[in-house]
Amino acid sequence: MREIGAAELRHVARGAAILGTGGGGDPYIGRLVAEQALLEYGPVLVAEPHEVPDDALVAGIGMIGAPTVMIEKLPAGEEAVTAFLTLQRELGRSITHVLPIEVGGMNSLAPFPVAASLGLPVLDADCMGRAFPMVQMVVCTLDGVPASPLAIADEKGNAIVVDVHDNNWAERLARSATIRMGCTALLSGFPMSGKQARDVTIPGTLTLASRLGRLVEQARREHVDPCQAIASFLGGRVLFTGKVVDVMRARDPGFAKGEARIEAHDASCRLEFQNEHLVASRDGEVLASVPDLICVLDEQGEPVPAERLRYGQRVAVVGAPCHPRWRTPEGLALVGPAAFGYSHEYRPLGV
Amino acid sequence: MREIGAAELRHVARGAAILGTGGGGDPYIGRLVAEQALLEYGPVLVAEPHEVPDDALVAGIGMIGAPTVMIEKLPAGEEAVTAFLTLQRELGRSITHVLPIEVGGMNSLAPFPVAASLGLPVLDADCMGRAFPMVQMVVCTLDGVPASPLAIADEKGNAIVVDVHDNNWAERLARSATIRMGCTALLSGFPMSGKQARDVTIPGTLTLASRLGRLVEQARREHVDPCQAIASFLGGRVLFTGKVVDVMRARDPGFAKGEARIEAHDASCRLEFQNEHLVASRDGEVLASVPDLICVLDEQGEPVPAERLRYGQRVAVVGAPCHPRWRTPEGLALVGPAAFGYSHEYRPLGV
Repeated sequence: MREIGAAELRHVARGAAILGTGGGGDPYIGRLVAEQALLEYGPVLVAEPHEVPDDALVAGIGMIGAPTVMIEKLPAGEEAVTAFLTLQRELGRSITHVLPIEVGGMNSLAPFPVAASLGLPVLDADCMGRAFPMVQMVVCTLDGVPASPLAIADEKGNAIVVDVHDNNWAERLARSATIRMGCTALLSGFPMSGKQARDVTIPGTLTLASRLGRLVEQARREHVDPCQAIASFLGGRVLFTGKVVDVMRARDPGFAKGEARIEAHDASCRLEFQNEHLVASRDGEVLASVPDLICVLDEQGEPVPAERLRYGQRVAVVGAPCHPRWRTPEGLALVGPAAFGYSHEYRPLGV
Repeated sequence: MREIGAAELRHVARGAAILGTGGGGDPYIGRLVAEQALLEYGPVLVAEPHEVPDDALVAGIGMIGAPTVMIEKLPAGEEAVTAFLTLQRELGRSITHVLPIEVGGMNSLAPFPVAASLGLPVLDADCMGRAFPMVQMVVCTLDGVPASPLAIADEKGNAIVVDVHDNNWAERLARSATIRMGCTALLSGFPMSGKQARDVTIPGTLTLASRLGRLVEQARREHVDPCQAIASFLGGRVLFTGKVVDVMRARDPGFAKGEARIEAHDASCRLEFQNEHLVASRDGEVLASVPDLICVLDEQGEPVPAERLRYGQRVAVVGAPCHPRWRTPEGLALVGPAAFGYSHEYRPLGV
């Protein structure tokens, strides 16, 4: 186990926002909430999955809803703790480890206020290896680990517990409650044993985010193009560079949905998103698609969340391969293009 | 304590559907589910509130959603038990008595499958003295007794627990979950001590429903107008008699909303409903309004649920005074015309 303090949070927030492919919540807001908790309670211990005892009780933490809304409806800071304690009461046992459900600018940090205030370690792992917009879109689903029981809490102190048979129903009921709570809320769920956590999560993703965040600063110091550095680090490539000339946002209370157009002098790139960037295309040709990573970065290599996309930004679109589990037939059935209503076939990036 | 068997259920179902003022679920469906439970487990004991020990743990049961939908999406029969056991697990203590949350064709009977299968007594009381469409519209709210924690379960076995500060939030979150579950569900909530149940519920309403149901049969046997008999029994009067010539239903997934027009040879009556009949008016003049009871009956004195109103029915509209608590300023604030978006002033019937 190692400690993560406020200094490293900054790297994790940036790296996780890159891996979060536009989703997973604003890294700035996530960092402020986590820093405040570390300031109050001290640094947090991070455990590798192999350090977790078999009979540990692990539970996930993550934000749910439309990140667009969180820009204005800021979290109170206590939501994750309320959700976590509600889940713990429902389980009737003490939870021993906190797990980020996904990698994302806010979501990789969401477990920190819980871990800091309750003195629990955070697992260096997550359930996606990136961010996805829906509850069932986790490798746990492929392994039959239920999201339920899960608890959701809002900034007013309201909480609900969802107790259902499958992860699609968990998504439906969690989403409708989130919308009623004001379109954003904090979720705690996916209770699992230490053994399960080792078997069904993607290890090392907090450390990966931290290294990636640090890499951006290093590239700037060394006058290397940070976007190229990020692409190389992730085994991907820069797909397009240009200026955001249009952003259309759909009115969906449950997600930040929409699309953007990015123009270069001779071509334009279309970017479709639902919290995360789902598809990047050029003249109708798909450049990259879920489940592969599509990361939008400014010229300094700073990740641009989908909800912050706006006219005039100069951005690079980086594509990178997703975790191999997502490229299996079961993985593609859960998070491939068809799962988001697209008819194009998935062609793995970098193959 | 006395026993209620299948024979008396028939009277309770009819009487409760009259007191339910169009809402509270179809008495036929409610009776079938309750009869089946009594057939399997035997008769149910009914306790007067004064027979309940101070430290008893009482919990309410009721249907939530749009009764229109329940005509086609029939209950599986286990929903109330699932909701009740989910609440019990959340409370961490055994519930000792089951309470109908409201008086209604289905809702007065909804506690019976729970009581029969778990061997618990049903309280001869409810929280409204009639039916209302929303969770917060109970005398408990006037007395500061929370609806939460409450559990909701659907026919697929899904359940959620709502844990909130006030009864308006309980309504919002319960309603959104109900809509996602398919617009109808069973709710168990309002956990309270035996002492509280004595203090904050309206006693004797099961027995009242039973007597009222029996009265209708007696009137028919004695060739007395059953609608007049019902009106006299309730201290009200027949407001209008005529034929249903129009029914408009609003598309609201959470409620059975709409209005009907009833015509006599020289006049017409407008009936507005949201699960329950809210306002009856003639040429713009309000004949009766929430919180007073507006009961629609066919010529045989059989109650017509709002979701069963249709062209060509010959009906009598009976108005009757509500429970005195609803006529106080606090009561009217909670369930008076303004609570349903009307601007007319409430004028108590029969005064």
